[in-house]
Formats: sequence, C-alpha cells, structure tokens
Amino acid sequence: MEQKISVGLLGLGTVGTGVIKIIKGHQEQLTHQVGCPVHIEKVLVRDMKKKRSVEVEEHLLTENPFDVVANPNIDVVIEVMGGVKEAKEWILEALKHKKNVVTANKDLVALHGAELLQVAQKNECDLFYEASVAGGIPIIRSLVEGLSSDRIKKMMGIVNGTTNFILTKMSKAGSSYEDVLQEAQRLGYAESDPTSDVEGLDAARKMAILASLGFSMNIHLEDVSARGISSVTEEDLHYCDQLGYTMKLIGLAQRDEGRVEVSVEPTLLPNEHPLAAVNDEYNAVYVYGEAVGETMFYGPGAGSLPTATAVMSDVVTVMKNMRLGVTGRSIKAPLYEKQLKTDVEIQSKYFMRLHVLDKAGTFSAITSLFADHDVSFEKLLQLPIEGTEVAEIIIITHKTTKRIYEDIYQKLNNLDVVQSVESSYRVEGGK
Amino acid sequence: MEQKISVGLLGLGTVGTGVIKIIKGHQEQLTHQVGCPVHIEKVLVRDMKKKRSVEVEEHLLTENPFDVVANPNIDVVIEVMGGVKEAKEWILEALKHKKNVVTANKDLVALHGAELLQVAQKNECDLFYEASVAGGIPIIRSLVEGLSSDRIKKMMGIVNGTTNFILTKMSKAGSSYEDVLQEAQRLGYAESDPTSDVEGLDAARKMAILASLGFSMNIHLEDVSARGISSVTEEDLHYCDQLGYTMKLIGLAQRDEGRVEVSVEPTLLPNEHPLAAVNDEYNAVYVYGEAVGETMFYGPGAGSLPTATAVMSDVVTVMKNMRLGVTGRSIKAPLYEKQLKTDVEIQSKYFMRLHVLDKAGTFSAITSLFADHDVSFEKLLQLPIEGTEVAEIIIITHKTTKRIYEDIYQKLNNLDVVQSVESSYRVEGGK
Repeated sequence: MEQKISVGLLGLGTVGTGVIKIIKGHQEQLTHQVGCPVHIEKVLVRDMKKKRSVEVEEHLLTENPFDVVANPNIDVVIEVMGGVKEAKEWILEALKHKKNVVTANKDLVALHGAELLQVAQKNECDLFYEASVAGGIPIIRSLVEGLSSDRIKKMMGIVNGTTNFILTKMSKAGSSYEDVLQEAQRLGYAESDPTSDVEGLDAARKMAILASLGFSMNIHLEDVSARGISSVTEEDLHYCDQLGYTMKLIGLAQRDEGRVEVSVEPTLLPNEHPLAAVNDEYNAVYVYGEAVGETMFYGPGAGSLPTATAVMSDVVTVMKNMRLGVTGRSIKAPLYEKQLKTDVEIQSKYFMRLHVLDKAGTFSAITSLFADHDVSFEKLLQLPIEGTEVAEIIIITHKTTKRIYEDIYQKLNNLDVVQSVESSYRVEGGK
Repeated sequence: MEQKISVGLLGLGTVGTGVIKIIKGHQEQLTHQVGCPVHIEKVLVRDMKKKRSVEVEEHLLTENPFDVVANPNIDVVIEVMGGVKEAKEWILEALKHKKNVVTANKDLVALHGAELLQVAQKNECDLFYEASVAGGIPIIRSLVEGLSSDRIKKMMGIVNGTTNFILTKMSKAGSSYEDVLQEAQRLGYAESDPTSDVEGLDAARKMAILASLGFSMNIHLEDVSARGISSVTEEDLHYCDQLGYTMKLIGLAQRDEGRVEVSVEPTLLPNEHPLAAVNDEYNAVYVYGEAVGETMFYGPGAGSLPTATAVMSDVVTVMKNMRLGVTGRSIKAPLYEKQLKTDVEIQSKYFMRLHVLDKAGTFSAITSLFADHDVSFEKLLQLPIEGTEVAEIIIITHKTTKRIYEDIYQKLNNLDVVQSVESSYRVEGGK
C-alpha cells in the first residue's frame, strides 16, 4: 500500500487555485476517502513570479511541463490550464508516462474526448472530466453510475451561467440584452469577448459531452446545432411571461428509437417546469429516463471552488482505482452507432412573433397557411400596435416537425400581409 | 472472468417487480456496463400462486428464503421485501454466505445500517442502499463520491412524497389538511394508515441516513427530532403565501464546528429558494457544501421503476466491484464522533401566528417580550378578525436560538392579552 499519493497540476488559474485550497484545507477527509495523504508534487505555471491568491511553496512551481507530465513521483496529473492544443499535447504526454489524468477542459473533451479516452485505456490509465460540464454538479457521475441501468430519453441543460444570468436579469428587470450584457461584464459574469457564451458554443460543447455519455454514442461538437441569445428581445420575454412561459438557453439532447438530436437554442419552458426556476448564474441538467422518469441536478456551473470540488471528486476516484489496481478499466467504447435525426424527425412546439398589416383577411391568410400544413395552435394572441397600421401576432403551435415549421416560416416571410417575422423560438417541456 | 452474474431477490412487490422489468428490458446496457449478462436466479415470495404484473418463470419463485440467501449460484442478494426484523435476519444470513447485498429498505438502514455495514465489511461484501432515500435521485452516490472532497455544512431534504403532495395541494387549492389527505389516499399517494408519512417518521429515517453519510457520523433515528404536517392549517399557508414563503416538510441536517442538528418539521422557505419549487409528490435534496456552495438533486422519491433504477445502479456497482475483486472495500467507519447540538446552539428564524385581544397595550406587551429576549422581527403583521374583539398577529423573527424562542413561546402563552398561539414554524433558507 502506498504511503501517499502525489498529484501534479498543469495550470494555476482560478480552478487550479481552488484545487490547491481543497487539498490543503480538506486533508483529513481526503485521507479518510483515499486511505492515505494527498500530496502536491509540482505545478506548471506560465510565470513563476506572478502574485497568487493561494500560497504555494516556490520549489513546487515550474515553467517546464515535463516536470509534471514526466515526473516519476507524480501519480495523477490535473489539467486546469485550458485551451486545446497545448492541453491535449501535455495530456497525451502524461498518459504516455502512465499518469492518470483529471481535466476540467470542456473544449478539449468536446473536441478530442474519444481519442484521449482511447489513449488512456491503452495505457491503463484513468481519464476523468466531471468538471468539464456544470462544475458544481456531479452530473457525469450520475449519468455514468446513478442512472446506469436506465435508458435516457432526453436531457435538457442550462449549462452556461453567463447566458442564464443575462436571461434572468432581462426577464426580471425588463432590460435589453445589451444593457444586461454590459452589467454582466462589469460583474465578471461575462467575458469581455462574450461570443462563446452568448452564441451558445460553450453550451454546445457541454451538450456534446453529455449526449455522448447519456446516449453512449460519439457525439461531436459539429453534430450540435447551436443558436445563442443575442437576438432575444425584451418584447419576446414580455410575451413569454404573459403566456406563462420562461425563456432559457436550453441544451437539448433527445433520443427516439436510436436516433438523436442535440441542439442549443433559446427555448420557452412552461413556468411549472423545474428548469424554469433555475435563475441567475446557476446551472441545472434535467434528465428524463425511461425508468426513473424526471430528475434534475442543480448547482453552480462554474467558479473556483465548485469546479475544484468536481476535479477533486475525480481525483479521489482515480486514487481509489489506483489502490485497487484497476485504473483505465472503467473506460468503455460507445455502445451505439451515432444516428442523427433529420429535420423531418425533429419534433417540437414553436413560438412565433409576427408583425402583420392590421386589415381584413390578414388573420385568415396566416391561419390558413398553418392549417394547410396541418399545424394547429396551442395559443394565439393578436394585438394592435398603437399609432400604426400594424398588429402583432403571437403564436404557440402544437407539435410539428422542424421541416414543416421552417417551411411555414419561409412562406410567412413571403406573404404580403406579413411585415416581418420578428422572432421564433422552440417550446419544450409541456405535455 | 465470470460468464454471467446472478442475482436473487427477497420480495416481489412494487420495487421487486420494477427490478425484474429493468433486468429483462435493459439487458444490453447492463451487459455493456458490467461486461457480462445479468441473470435472475431465485425470487423469494410470500405466496407462489399470487397473480403478478411481471412475468416470472414459476421455477424461479420460492417461499424459502434460504433458496436465495444460501444459494451457491447467487452473487448479489437484492432485498426489497420491506419490514425490519425478517429483512435484517435474511440480510445477515446472506452476508454470512458471502453474498453482496443491495437494499431499498430505509427503516432497516436507519435502524441497523451501521451494524449491517460492519458485518458486510467483515465478510468482504458490498452493502449498498441508494434506493433507501429518495428512490429516483442518486443522492447517496453524490454525497459519497461527487462531493467527497467537500465539507458538507447543511442538507435540506423534501424526502417524503406524500406530505409534499398534501402541502402542495393545500397551498394551491386552499383546501384543508383532512380533505387533501383523503384525496391523496384515494389517488394512492397516501397509505390508509398515513401516520409514518404525515408525522414525519419516514422523513426522519431518511434524514438519519443522509446525515450519517454527509457528516460521516453515526446518526441514529432517535437523534432526529420529528414533527409532521397534521397541524398545518389553511390559515398558515395563506399567510405564508402573503409573506412570500412556501411551506414544506423539511428534513434539516446542519453542522457547525463539528456539532450537528438533525430535524424534520414543517418549515417556511422563501419562494425563491430552489426547494420551494419542488411540488406534488416529487422529492429533492438541497446540499450546501463549504466549497461547492448550493446544489440540489431533484426527482421522484418513490415508485416501482424509479426505485428499481436506484437498486440496479447499486447492483451494477457491486458487479463491477466483484469483477475487480474489491467488494466490501468501500465501506468506511465514520470519521467523526457524533456531537449533537443543544437548544442553545440551534439557531433559526421562526414564524408565529397569535390570536390576541384587540385593545390598547397588547401590541406593546408582545413586542416588549421579544425585545426583552433580544429577538427582533423580520416581518410583523396585525389584522383584526372581523366580528370579534380578537386580532391576529403574524410574526417572522430574525435569527435566535431554539432555547430563547421556546422561552418566549411559553411566556406568550401565559400573557393575559394573548388568547392563543395558533401556530409556530421554523423559517429557513434566507440570508
């Protein structure tokens, strides 16, 4: 039995700092969990001289990655440096040196997860990545273990804190997207270049990871259709509220008879849906399993200590596996061939907001277009826009296919009485 | 490597039926997870002739428990018979015969969990009980693994579906406790003798299990103070609503500097709290960890298939451990000595509803009693009760100790101007 287990860190930013705080502050629990003390051996940093918010003895720091990935004393390499190219290179090097790896890097896992897992398995090493999706929520573990004997049909995730913060504030304060984005940037909830968050790319990466696990298929980032929140307006949120819905940026992964759809887009949920109450920067993943029914996991999506908690839970699992001599054995090839749904298989309800000419015949022209496509309405609202000859029409359809809906959308745009289709969203979570 | 893994069931009620359905229906995933097929060897039933909702070959059924617990072909015994005395006897017998055990029996785990775990460890067998708390939610796994490197400060659970159903209906429909209880019984959400549910005993058992795990202490059922919902009135819920609170039967487990409190009682939560949105028969466990912050796990608390999913996730873990030859190794003695808080250490806000004489001096007599004990008000409401000389006073206090609050409660009852203290509840979840 080993006398201690040694870890090396690649990176000492927010998450790395949290990891060191937890290792130093929770030594008693860790020893109880693992059966021996956990020891920090080396930490790769970009700049040895930089001031840090956590005390790390200077001799532990290095600017040479090989001091970590090829260090004979290190058992587990924790990658918290971010980025894709270098992180991949050093993880591969670590695996080649038979180091177990824990990473918090969603970009890397979404792009190269399958390849890295293969290399890990070949080297009989563990590779865990709980922290890569919704930092503070043990969702990956729940999918892999807790729901392991169930057949997961559907997952809906609020997996990006920045966009949830923005939509929550827009809804509650009635403010514009631009104003709230600026506030979020000031408060540190949004980056100075917020593209990856607000355009849904970050959420798409996480959904590719969740869908791959939940459906036991290799889902790639390019399989996920992504639309962000930058076009969501105050008017849209106003009507959502009026109709009893809440708008969220929802990552959806759905499986029907072996065929799947993975998407990220602003989506209306009925106010009673558990995801509708997930506010501010919080994350949540809703899972519908054939046997278990509805479950939801809620928690902080990011942050130094929440993410570090997820990293450390993986480290504890690696350490247990090391002591049992079974590292690398939990890695499994996907059970199913990937089969993506086409537009005629994707089914949903839709919300649409139109500006139309306020005159006789308009309403019937529009409703008969829907009727011709065999699409009926769940809700319908027509309001004059004061001081104009234009009226606003709000529609929530019953279920139809994406293909039919897009067809209607095109035809509406070409209809004389329609001035503009102002907005269009998916509606989920109902009966 | 074994060619198959064989399970035996003790009991074939709701959960047992679900287990068999999952084993038969999900053979492909199970084989993928475990690496070999899962096979049902024997099922203990009370009556071989009874009609069942699942097809089980007659030669698999037995009325003799030894055909299961002492069966040389069986690797894992699944106890889903319920009750304490017999269940304990057969589990001990199974462990003696080196069978791994999975149980869904909260009564048994709450009363004899520590003893059973010791016997399991001595026999190098696994003993898992995920299904004993909040069936459809992998909360035990999350506490043991996902949050393993964190220090859990507080857990609040809605862990009884019957009472949550009743409180939800009472709040939404404004109906009385008795009416809703009858409806719940008609719908099958409440037993014909509902005592264990409505008086909080069922929730207390689950909280003893959660607190033992979350705090790594031996918390016994008698350490949990329990109060049920049978005294909750429509008036109380009306005022809750008016003040922006939701009433839930909350199992609370809190740790401060190594000293803990575990209780079950009807509790007011601010409407914005994630637990306040958990409605109907759903369960949820809110966990506050020092590092991770706020997380919540939501799902069905009972039901055939949800509970069977939890049982089967344990069975999969046992099977993996068997293949690795490491059964019994994950069982750990508690890390800490139990230390319960006294009434001067338990702190909370409180809600109180009083009937008082509507005359000069009343209000000041009451408020000065609170002031004398250094307790201030967060909210205060006085309303005349029409056609009487009585007024209703609603108080929500700031934080105080249980000792001081009970002292005030006694003194109020003895005050001339106070006709009656109508109700009194704990208030949690705020700042």
